[in-house]
Formats: sequence, structure tokens, C-alpha cells
Amino acid sequence: MATPLKVGIAGLGNVGAGVVKLLAKNGALVARRAGRPIAVTAVAARDRTRDRGIDLAGLAWEDDAVALAHRDDVDVVVELIGGSDGPALTLARAALTGGKPFVTANKAMLAHHGLELAKAAEAAGVALRYEAAVAGGIPVIKGLSEGAAANVIAHVYGVLNGTCNYILTAMEQQGRDFSEVLAEAQALGYAEADPSFDIDGVDAAHKLSILASLAFGAAIDFDGVGITGIRHIIAADIAEAASLGYRIRLVGFGEAGPHGLFQRVHPCLVPMDHPLAHVTGSLNAVVAEGDFVGRLLFQGRGAGEGPTASAVVADLVDIARGGTGPAFAMPVDSLARLERAPAGRRRGRAYLRFTVSDRPGVLAELTAAMRDAGVSIESLIQRGAAADGSVLLVMVTHEGPEESVAHALERLEGSQSLIGAPMLMHILDS
Amino acid sequence: MATPLKVGIAGLGNVGAGVVKLLAKNGALVARRAGRPIAVTAVAARDRTRDRGIDLAGLAWEDDAVALAHRDDVDVVVELIGGSDGPALTLARAALTGGKPFVTANKAMLAHHGLELAKAAEAAGVALRYEAAVAGGIPVIKGLSEGAAANVIAHVYGVLNGTCNYILTAMEQQGRDFSEVLAEAQALGYAEADPSFDIDGVDAAHKLSILASLAFGAAIDFDGVGITGIRHIIAADIAEAASLGYRIRLVGFGEAGPHGLFQRVHPCLVPMDHPLAHVTGSLNAVVAEGDFVGRLLFQGRGAGEGPTASAVVADLVDIARGGTGPAFAMPVDSLARLERAPAGRRRGRAYLRFTVSDRPGVLAELTAAMRDAGVSIESLIQRGAAADGSVLLVMVTHEGPEESVAHALERLEGSQSLIGAPMLMHILDS
Repeated sequence: MATPLKVGIAGLGNVGAGVVKLLAKNGALVARRAGRPIAVTAVAARDRTRDRGIDLAGLAWEDDAVALAHRDDVDVVVELIGGSDGPALTLARAALTGGKPFVTANKAMLAHHGLELAKAAEAAGVALRYEAAVAGGIPVIKGLSEGAAANVIAHVYGVLNGTCNYILTAMEQQGRDFSEVLAEAQALGYAEADPSFDIDGVDAAHKLSILASLAFGAAIDFDGVGITGIRHIIAADIAEAASLGYRIRLVGFGEAGPHGLFQRVHPCLVPMDHPLAHVTGSLNAVVAEGDFVGRLLFQGRGAGEGPTASAVVADLVDIARGGTGPAFAMPVDSLARLERAPAGRRRGRAYLRFTVSDRPGVLAELTAAMRDAGVSIESLIQRGAAADGSVLLVMVTHEGPEESVAHALERLEGSQSLIGAPMLMHILDS
Repeated sequence: MATPLKVGIAGLGNVGAGVVKLLAKNGALVARRAGRPIAVTAVAARDRTRDRGIDLAGLAWEDDAVALAHRDDVDVVVELIGGSDGPALTLARAALTGGKPFVTANKAMLAHHGLELAKAAEAAGVALRYEAAVAGGIPVIKGLSEGAAANVIAHVYGVLNGTCNYILTAMEQQGRDFSEVLAEAQALGYAEADPSFDIDGVDAAHKLSILASLAFGAAIDFDGVGITGIRHIIAADIAEAASLGYRIRLVGFGEAGPHGLFQRVHPCLVPMDHPLAHVTGSLNAVVAEGDFVGRLLFQGRGAGEGPTASAVVADLVDIARGGTGPAFAMPVDSLARLERAPAGRRRGRAYLRFTVSDRPGVLAELTAAMRDAGVSIESLIQRGAAADGSVLLVMVTHEGPEESVAHALERLEGSQSLIGAPMLMHILDS
């Protein structure tokens, strides 16, 4: 058998330990598939004493991760530290400029520094791989950059954050409110103590910016992603959406069109006959629509020790087989620098929920604002006042320019009839 | 830009013409992704006069496909002739032994001669690629052989034949019988004039044998696939399955366990909360369950000019990028030669439908046969006699050895109570 591929792992949290476990359990099979053994030779982590349930005997230990990049017994560096800057970025630069292939699960670092790192990988002629960074175990990086490579892709979108989807599904199934389900998810370890990265959509936006780059042959533009999270969704939104034939999902949506690149993470109403409506719990799913292949769907577990380790080792197998292709499916200089397409010019349908006072004239005020902004209403639901006297009013608009809906909401700003801010969600008609 | 990859295409039916169209439309993008242009230089087809809607000017034309393998202006041969033997196989051998990479959409040839061809490719150090052979445009060959490479896969299964799924879905939505929907599908061009390859499950079995090889690291064993098609499903089966919470799908199912390799194409009852229940119309979907990644689902269009061309060109992009990995995810000599696991020892639940005479004692006879064979009944439905006096009787069994159900049916063979053969379907509890 050929010489082993020697791996240095930086970061021994769940995923790092998972990679060690996977290679211990499936090493022989992986070697058959990779054409050579894949062997961890060195690790870097802070705490030498913690019991991680893995056997680290015989592995070199570095306190400083960057030292892995300089070891002769490390052919490829795996970065599982996390964080967009700091030690992860220092290590990435050291590995790639030093001519070592680099594997990472770090979506934040790629969203912010992906192009720089891809250029460094190209200059050194080594691989930069990150299957685990988007949608965990689902081989969607490979699916887009290789499987769908023959297509002009019009849209790429998906359920990219398992924590949000777990919360939305639990709200849906149990009729409970957001804060209650979040608290439970935190107690169960499904959501972080500081959940904002997930529930405010930043994590999904990191992933979307990477998918959009691959799908559209465009430079990553994380700052161009419009981001809204799921904090303001209430149980009634989910119930009303259901009564209209929809489920609510946090959708990362990318589109390349004549106006440029459009990227948005936003809660959306997904029709029941769309596959994303059936993505439940902490699952992830990605849809790509190509001009020849049509609609492709990839679905699976988007996070967790096992799925993420699976994706990291898939990258190692690629590298063991000699893969050195460009990180973003084409050389960095071939990536288009696309303009940002303004959201307002897009056409679509919208869901609007208002909490209003129960008094005469409110409905007339709202519908007049819609009419004056040129928004046409497809459905309107009002179901009587709550105990506190407030009334929920839900509208679904006909298809029209998004800026019209924005104008209508501007007209209503400061209205005495509204209690709190209106809730706007887009309808996924793709 | 680097030198073009020069392609010779054998077979200019829909898919061959689709590849030419795709490269004409998306050539510039494909070149950016592949790192070099991909150019068709020569074609082989019988009819030079037919209008295929593509520009063949400037392309060399061979009447004999095998001549493509010997042309200096052909770097890679694409075979889209079809048929497990004959010209397709002759061409494959000539191309691979002559040291030219070979791309095919020919599942029948791979099911029967895949190992021989893979060995020839290895000996010559060139690529044998066939993404289009299974599930059309869905990159499931890549997904299994690369994306899921780190996993021991316990099961691989899916909806692998779009014609069958179109028919089953139409029966489901319209409450119509098989023969009526088949005739309509033939009139619309969704089913062949001789539909037996599709509806009797042979096409799905070809694809399953390839998926099983990739998933389990085992030599292809097409002859080991148990095959039952959808001919004998009646509208009432679909209605009764629905009343029990299931949809009927023709499922190709592979499993590697302690007893060996189990492969079966069979109509199955799929629970409504399983993703395959939502695969409708002519879509295909493949599920793989890995020990680390969990359940992966790949879904999309499994046939047709555009999706198939998309998969063929994805293979060409791989080859243009320098890919030469083994055809079945590992060298042929590393593939395990697995025993065939007997169906009877598997445990599962079954759906049984009997058409019986409406007279006393029939139900006692059937239930006694079940009891005597050790089959325990979970549900039983009988809904009164039809106009002709016959009665439908539907049973779902509790989980038990499949051989028990087979024994019960043997006991009932020749019974005067039965009108026609009973219908047996398995329940997908995976």
C-alpha cells in the first residue's frame, strides 16, 4: 500500500475528536477508498487533560496550532478551531503559503477570507477543501462545484442552519412561541448559550455566501447578504402560514441575474409541495436550479460530530487521491465580481403580519397604505381580538416588486394603529 | 488558456445531442470551471441526415463508433449508444485499452461488464466515468464514491426509475389503474413502446447494482438483484396503502450485513414521513445511510436530455481537471466479493392483498395460513364485495422473517378461495 497521508488536526472539540474516532473505526475502508491510509500524526489543542473518548497516544501534541504547519510529519492540516480570524486564520495562511493542503470546517473564516486563502492555495498548488463548512455532512460543495459544473445555475438556496430549523419545526409541531422553544433547545444543547449567530441568521449567511460563489462562479461577497433571523416569528405566524398552505423556514437564497448577485437570509413561507417544507428538525437541505439539470436537492444532517467528521474525512480522501482543484470551482481570477442586485426590484409575494389595536378604521388605514404603495392583496385574515385587546392581521400579497411592500410599510411607520413592528416574510415561489 | 479537451461522442440521440447543445450554450462557463475548454471534435451516429437541432459543421463524422477510439483528435470518448453489449461494449474496450478516458451513461453495460471495464481503465491509468448512468442529472455517483467516502454505509436505496414513479404517482393522484396510466404515458412519450425494461424493474436493478458496489465497496453483482416490477399494482393497492399512511414506490434497496449483500428492486410501501414518499412524478432520489454522516438524500431529475447531458459534462469536467480515480471508488482488486444474503432471513413488515371469493370460510382459511406460518397480522382491511362478487382483502403484517410470509403464501397456493395471485409488497421501515 502507498505511503500514508499524514494529518495534523488543530482543535479537538467534538468535530476534531470525531475525525480521530472516524479514522480509528473506518480507517481500513477509508484506506481502500483513498488508495492509501490516512493517519493522524499530530494534534494541537489547549487542554491536554480533558477526556475526549479518543486515544491520543503516539500523536505529537502542539500547544500552538500554527506549529502543525511546520511539522515534517504533517502532510495536510485540518483546522477545527473556528472563528473568522485569530489562530484559525494564522494557521490557514501558514499551512497554505508553506505548501500544505488545508482542510477546514470554518465557514466564518471562508466567508471573510476565502478568496485570499484560495489564492494562496493556487499559488502553492495545493488543495483548500471545506466540505464540512456548509451543510455539515451533505456533500454539497462537491455537488455544486463538480456535480453541477456543467450548468448555469439560476438559484441556489436552502435550509442552512439546523438550530433555526429545529426551533421552527418545534414551534410548528407544538404550537409554542419562539422564546420558549429556544430556552428548551439551549437546555438540551441544541442551541448555544449565546444563540445569536444562529438565530439571527449570520451562520446561514456565511454558508450562503460560499454556496453563491460556487453556484454562480462569483467572488464571495458576504457583506452583500441581507440578513434577518427568526427572533420575531410568533406561534401565530406559523399557524396562519399553515392555514394558507405553507411552512416557515429560514431560507438562505442566492440568485444571479441581469441586475447582479442577490443574496438574502430571511424567514420564508415555503409551499407544502416544495421539498424544503419537508426538511424538519435539525436537518439541512440545499437546492440548486441549473439550466440543464433542473432542480437538484441535497438533504442530510447539517451539523454534529459524526456528519461533520464525515465531510472532513471526505476532503482528506480527495487530497489522498491527489485532488488539487481550485477551492471555489475555478481559479480566483476567473471568478466574476458581480454587482449587488437591489432587493427592491425583485418581484415576489410577501406575508405581512400586523398587531393592531381593535378599533374602527385600522383595517382601512392598512389597506389604504397597501393600495397607495401599489400592493395588491391576495389573502387577508383577521381572527378577533386577543385577551389584551390586540388583533392580529395577516396579509399575503400578490406578486409584485418588493419595494412596493417596503414603501407600504414605510407609510405605516409611526401609525398609532400598530402595536409593535410588522412582520414581513417572503414567499418561496422558486 | 490550456489546450482543449477533445471529445468524441458516439450516439447522437437525445442525450448525445444534449451534450452538444450544452457545450455550445455553456461552453465558456464550463471552460472556466474545467480550467480548459471542452470541445466536441468528432461524432459517430448512423443517420447523417436527421435534423437534431444542433450544428455539426466542422465535426468529423464516423459511421463506425469504434473509430472514435483511434482518432488522434479525440482525447476522451463519450458513449451514448446504449445496450449492454454490441457496439457500446466494443467501443468501451477499444477506448480504454487504447488509453483514452471513457464516459458513458450506459447502466446496462456497467451492470454486466463494469468490473472488466474498470480493470481496463486501471491498467491504462485512465478514467472510466458514468455519473449519467444512475439517477440522471443527480450527482449521486460522486456523492457516494467521494462525498460519503468516509462512511461504512449500511443501506443504499432509492427511487431509480422515473417511468415507474411517473406511473405510480399518476395512479395515486388520479385513482386510475396501471394499464390505463401506462397507455397514457406511452402516448405522451414518458414510457417506451416496449416498457418492460422500466416497469418490470430491470433498469432500476442495473442502477441499484452500481450503487451497491459504490456504497459497500463490493464487486457489482447484477445477477444477485431480486427484481419485481409494478405491473401487478392496482388502484386499490394505492388507495389502501394511503388509508394506512403510505405511498407506493418502486424502491431499489441494497444492504450489506453479516449475511452478505442483499439487493432487491420491489414495490414498497413508504411511510408518509419518509422523504421517498414525497418523490413524485418522474423524479429520482437516492438515500444512503452512513455510520457517521447519517441519512443523506439526493433528489432530482433522473432522465431526459438536459439532466443526462449535465451529468455527462460533469464527468468531462472531472477528466479535464485531471481526475483519474478508480471507477468504483476503489481499485477493482480492493472490491469485496460478497455472498448473497438470502431474502428470507431478513426481518420486515409486509403488505398483502388477496382477491378472494365472497363466501364463508375464506377469511378463516387465510388467517389460518398466516398463523400456521408464524405470521402475525397488524392490520386487516376488507371492504365488501365488488360488482363481480370478488372481495379485496388487505393485510399488513407485524415485523417478522420474510420467509414466514413466503411460507404462508405457499400454503395458500392452489386455494379455491383465491382469485388470481396475491400481491406482496414490503414496507420500507429503514
